[in-house]
Amino acid sequence: MYRNVTCGALRSTDIQKEVILSGWVHKVRDKGFVIWVDLRDRYGITQLVFDEERSDKSLLEKAKELGRETVVQIEGTVIERASKNPNIPTGDVEVLVSSLQILNPSALPPFTIEDDTDGGDDLRMKYRYLDIRRNPVKNNLIFRHKVTMEVRKYLSDQGFIEVETPYLIKSTPEGARDFLVPSRMNEGQFYALPQSPQTFKQLLMVGGMDKYFQIVKCFRDEDLRADRQPEFTQIDCEMAFVEQEDILNTFEGLTKYLLKQIHNIDSGDFPRITYDEAMRTYGNDKPDIRFGMKFGELNDLAQHKEFSVFNSAELIVGIAVPGAASYTRKEIDKLIDWVKRPQVGAKGMVYVKYNEDGTFKSSVDKFYDTSDFAQWAERTQAKPGDLICVLSGNGNETRSQLSALRMEMAERLGLRKPDEFAPLWVVDFPLLELDEETGNYHAMHHPFTSPKPGQMELLESDPGAVRANAYDLVLNGNEIGGGSIRIHDKDIQATMFKHLGFTPEEARAQFGFLMDAFQYGAPPHGGIAFGLDRLVAILGGQETIRDFIAFPKNNSGRDVMIDAPATIDEEQLKELHLKLDL
Amino acid sequence: MYRNVTCGALRSTDIQKEVILSGWVHKVRDKGFVIWVDLRDRYGITQLVFDEERSDKSLLEKAKELGRETVVQIEGTVIERASKNPNIPTGDVEVLVSSLQILNPSALPPFTIEDDTDGGDDLRMKYRYLDIRRNPVKNNLIFRHKVTMEVRKYLSDQGFIEVETPYLIKSTPEGARDFLVPSRMNEGQFYALPQSPQTFKQLLMVGGMDKYFQIVKCFRDEDLRADRQPEFTQIDCEMAFVEQEDILNTFEGLTKYLLKQIHNIDSGDFPRITYDEAMRTYGNDKPDIRFGMKFGELNDLAQHKEFSVFNSAELIVGIAVPGAASYTRKEIDKLIDWVKRPQVGAKGMVYVKYNEDGTFKSSVDKFYDTSDFAQWAERTQAKPGDLICVLSGNGNETRSQLSALRMEMAERLGLRKPDEFAPLWVVDFPLLELDEETGNYHAMHHPFTSPKPGQMELLESDPGAVRANAYDLVLNGNEIGGGSIRIHDKDIQATMFKHLGFTPEEARAQFGFLMDAFQYGAPPHGGIAFGLDRLVAILGGQETIRDFIAFPKNNSGRDVMIDAPATIDEEQLKELHLKLDL
Repeated sequence: MYRNVTCGALRSTDIQKEVILSGWVHKVRDKGFVIWVDLRDRYGITQLVFDEERSDKSLLEKAKELGRETVVQIEGTVIERASKNPNIPTGDVEVLVSSLQILNPSALPPFTIEDDTDGGDDLRMKYRYLDIRRNPVKNNLIFRHKVTMEVRKYLSDQGFIEVETPYLIKSTPEGARDFLVPSRMNEGQFYALPQSPQTFKQLLMVGGMDKYFQIVKCFRDEDLRADRQPEFTQIDCEMAFVEQEDILNTFEGLTKYLLKQIHNIDSGDFPRITYDEAMRTYGNDKPDIRFGMKFGELNDLAQHKEFSVFNSAELIVGIAVPGAASYTRKEIDKLIDWVKRPQVGAKGMVYVKYNEDGTFKSSVDKFYDTSDFAQWAERTQAKPGDLICVLSGNGNETRSQLSALRMEMAERLGLRKPDEFAPLWVVDFPLLELDEETGNYHAMHHPFTSPKPGQMELLESDPGAVRANAYDLVLNGNEIGGGSIRIHDKDIQATMFKHLGFTPEEARAQFGFLMDAFQYGAPPHGGIAFGLDRLVAILGGQETIRDFIAFPKNNSGRDVMIDAPATIDEEQLKELHLKLDL
Repeated sequence: MYRNVTCGALRSTDIQKEVILSGWVHKVRDKGFVIWVDLRDRYGITQLVFDEERSDKSLLEKAKELGRETVVQIEGTVIERASKNPNIPTGDVEVLVSSLQILNPSALPPFTIEDDTDGGDDLRMKYRYLDIRRNPVKNNLIFRHKVTMEVRKYLSDQGFIEVETPYLIKSTPEGARDFLVPSRMNEGQFYALPQSPQTFKQLLMVGGMDKYFQIVKCFRDEDLRADRQPEFTQIDCEMAFVEQEDILNTFEGLTKYLLKQIHNIDSGDFPRITYDEAMRTYGNDKPDIRFGMKFGELNDLAQHKEFSVFNSAELIVGIAVPGAASYTRKEIDKLIDWVKRPQVGAKGMVYVKYNEDGTFKSSVDKFYDTSDFAQWAERTQAKPGDLICVLSGNGNETRSQLSALRMEMAERLGLRKPDEFAPLWVVDFPLLELDEETGNYHAMHHPFTSPKPGQMELLESDPGAVRANAYDLVLNGNEIGGGSIRIHDKDIQATMFKHLGFTPEEARAQFGFLMDAFQYGAPPHGGIAFGLDRLVAILGGQETIRDFIAFPKNNSGRDVMIDAPATIDEEQLKELHLKLDL
C-alpha cells in the first residue's frame, strides 16, 4: 500500500495517528538540525518533519538530499505543529517521519510547480504534464469534470439519452473545412471528422429518440485565431415535438441548475431580446449585460445642426460611461486614440462631459447647446458625473465600434465581474448572412434552420430580412450556446438548399441521406449546442478556454508536448494510396 | 405545444382527461364504422379511436387515409377501453380523438417497424434511423446510456476525474494501424487518431491527477473481423500510487455496482486465476465460468498403453459434457465432424460414455479398461450420464480446440444463460508474446506494462516466461476489461523498448515525450480499460456489439447509411498537399 491517507486530509483530530503518505517533494527547508519537507499530491500539502532529536540520523541525511518533485513514500506519526499555518487545511499538523522511501527521483523541472510559476506559456505547454501539477491548471480540470457531471445529471434526469454518434463520417463542403481521414480499405476515399453531429442528431429525431444529448469532440480545420482549438467539445442536444419555447425553457433550466450547483446562484428568468434589438442596444449579438451603457441613437437630436460630420452620418450613437466625466482632457484624448486604433476603426469620437453640477462640457460645444446635451443625456440614460461618448458613420460599423468601446470602458471600470453571471437569450436571428466578398447569401446558423412561420416567401424578394427560429444563449458577453428549430419538411429543405446555392445534385450528394430520411415521417424538432470549453471557462470566471483543456494545441494546431502532427513512414502513405504533393 | 403527455403514459386513472399526443402511426385497423390507430413514440403506444357515432365524419375520413409512420398530432379524451390489452402499460385506455393534424406524411418504410421486423441486416443498416424506431434497437441505446451514467457516477463518487485527452495525436508504429489525419497547416505532416489514450493517461499520472477516467472513442484501422468496429468506445482508467491489488479492488467494485444497479444482482468476491491456470483449466484466457466442464489432463493416465495416437501426443485433455452420455452414435459422429471443421481443427475426438448405470462405452474400448475410464472420469469430474470428450495433440492447439468444444457444448446445453453473470479476474499474463511469423517477441498488453518483481532478468534468458503485472476482467467468456501496472522507471522503460526491438532513436521518436516526462518524478501507477460496447452488450444479455451502437459501420468499415467514406474534391486534396496514388 502506497498510502493510507492523502496529503490534503490530516487535521488536528488525527494527532498521534500512524500514517503512510506518498507524493511529490514540493519544498525542502533545511535548518541543519531540522528539516521540513512540504509533501504534495492532488489533494493538498502536508508538512513532514525530520529532526536531530527525534529522527534517525541516516533518515535526516536522506531527507537533506531530497530534490524538488522527487516522488517519495513516508511513514510517520501525526504531531501538532509548533507554528500553525492557517493558509492550508492541514496547517495545524505535521508528520514526524519514521521511514522514507524514494519512489522516483526527479530532474530539476523546467519551471517551478507553484500557483505563480516562473514558466512561460511555451514552456508550460511543452511540459504540460508538469503544468497540470500546479493548482490553477489542476483545479480547472477538476472544475470541468464537475460541470460536465452536472450537465449529464440534469439532462439525464430530464429524460435525455446520451447517444454516441460516429467520428468517421462524410465530408461536407458547408462552412469550415473538415479534417479528412484517408481510408485504407476503401481506396481513394476519405472519411471526415465531424464539425458537429448535426445531421446525426436530426436522424436520431427521425428515429424517435426524442430527447438526445451528447458531450462530444468536434473538429474544424480553420486557420486558428487566438483561443480557438482545432478540436473542441460540444454539449450537443436535440428534441422532437418541440417548439422554440420548449427548447428555451429546457436549456434555461439547465443553465440555472448549473449556476445553482456550481455557484449557489439563484437566477431569475433569463431576459430575451431579439437579434435586431441586441444590435441596436449593444451593437453586438452577444451583449454583456452585467452592466448598462446601453446605446442611445441620436440622429433625430443631433442632425440638421451645423455639425457636418453628424449630418452626413448614417448613424449617430452614444453611450454614457458611468463616472467618467472626471476624465482629464489628456485621458479623453487617449480614449479617442483608442477608438481610432485599426482594431476598433472609428474615425473619431465626440464626447460630452455631464458634470456633477449638471453642466455639460463637450468637444462639439460650438454646434450644440445645453438643451441639446440634456436630450442626448436623456437618450443615453446619462447621469451627472457620466461621460457621453458618441460615434458616427455607417450603421453596422459604428455599432460595432461603439460596442468595442463599451466593453473596453466596462473592463476599465471593473464592471465585468468574474463572479457575476448575466445570462440572456438572443432570439430571431437572421436566417441568411450576406457574404460581402461573393455577394451570395449563406446560412447564418446552418442549412437546416427553419425560417420563422410565413417568411419563406421573403426568401426570394428580400433574403436578408428573413428571420429564423434561431437563438443563442449568451453569458457575460460570450455565446455559450446556439441552436434553432430545424426544417422537417423535405420540400422546404430542398428549397432552402436551392437558395443556399446548392444544385439538386450537390444537395443529394451531400445530404441525400438526410433528405431520404425526411421522407419517412420526420417529426418537428430543434436543438442547441453549447461550447463546453467556453462554458466551463466562463463558469470558472475566466475567458481563456485553453486553461480548461488538459492538452491544448497551439495557434498552428500543434501539440508541442508530443510534437504532433509529424511526418509518417513512406510505407504508411503507400497503404493509404497517397503521395505527398508538397 | 405538440403534446402534453407521451404515448406511454396514460392509465385508467387518466380517464376523462383531455390530452394532446404526438407520434407515429404504428398501425391502423379500419373496421369501416370504427378506426383504431396505434400511435407510437419513444415511450410506448397509445390506442386512438375514431368512430361513426362519436367522431366528426371528416375526421373519420382523414383517419382512414393515415399511412404507417405518418407523424400526427391529436387532441382527444381518454376513455376506458372496451377490450383491454394487458400486454402494454396503456392497455386499459384509449383516446377518443377530437382533432387530428398531420405533421408529416411518410413514404412506405422499407421494412416494418416491429420488434420482429421483416428487414434484413443490410436494409436496416441503410435505414438505421428507421431501425432505431424499433424497440430492440431503441432499448439497447437507452440501456447503453444508463450503463454509462452509472459508470460515471460510480467513478466520480470514488474521486475519479474525467479528463478529455486529444483526438488529434501522433502516430505510433506499435500494434494495430493508426487512422491518419493529414494536416493542412503543417505541410506533409499527419496527426493520428488514438488507438487509446494510453500515453496521455500516463502523463496525467505524472501530472498528479491520480484518479483519471474517460469514456472515449478509440480508433483502429484493422481489417475488420466480425463484430469489430474501426471506432469503438473505451472506459479508460488510470490510478497513481497503487498496486495491482488496489486496481482490482476498485474495478471489481465498479463491476459489482453495475450488476447491482442494472440487474439487482449481489455479486460475491470475483474469483481470480492466473493466465496459466486459465489456459490449463479452460484452454482460454477468457473462460466462461457460468458452467463447469473444466479440463482434465490425462497424459499420465492415458499414455504408455497401446493407443499410439495418445502416446505420440504432447497433451491429452478431456471434458465431461453433462448428460450427454445419451448421445447416439450418429450424434457423436456429428460432434466429431464438428471438431474436425477447419474453424476448430482437431484431427479427431475420443469419447467415453459414462452411462447412468456406471458402465463406460468408448471409442477406445480396445485400448483401455473400466478402471482406466474410471480414472479419466475422476480427472474430468464426470458423473454418470456424462459424455467425456478427449482431444490430443500439440499442447496449445489442443487446448484451444477443446475450449471451442466446451463453448459449443455449453451453447447446445443452454448453459450460457444471458441473465446469469459470472465475472472473474485473470492475472499474471505473460509480458511478451512470440510472433510465430517473425520469431520476435512483442508486448502482449503494451510496451508500458511492468514485469512482475524480480523477473527483469528473465527478459534475456527466457522472454516468454516473464510474467507481467497485467490482468483482464472476464465476464461470461468475454474480456470486458484489461490493464496493467505500468513501468514508471525510465531506465526500465528504456530496457523494455530495447527488448521489444526499438532502436533508441525509434523509441525516442515515438515515445520521447513519455520518457522525458518520466524524468520528472513519475509516480507508481497502473490502470485498466473496458470495452464499453462489449460491456454494454454483455450486461444486456447479448453478444453482438453492433446492436448497441447507434450508427455502426459494416465489415468494410463503411457507413452504408451516409455512404462514407467517399471521394473528395481535387481542391481538398490539394489543400492537404496530397495526391492519390491508386
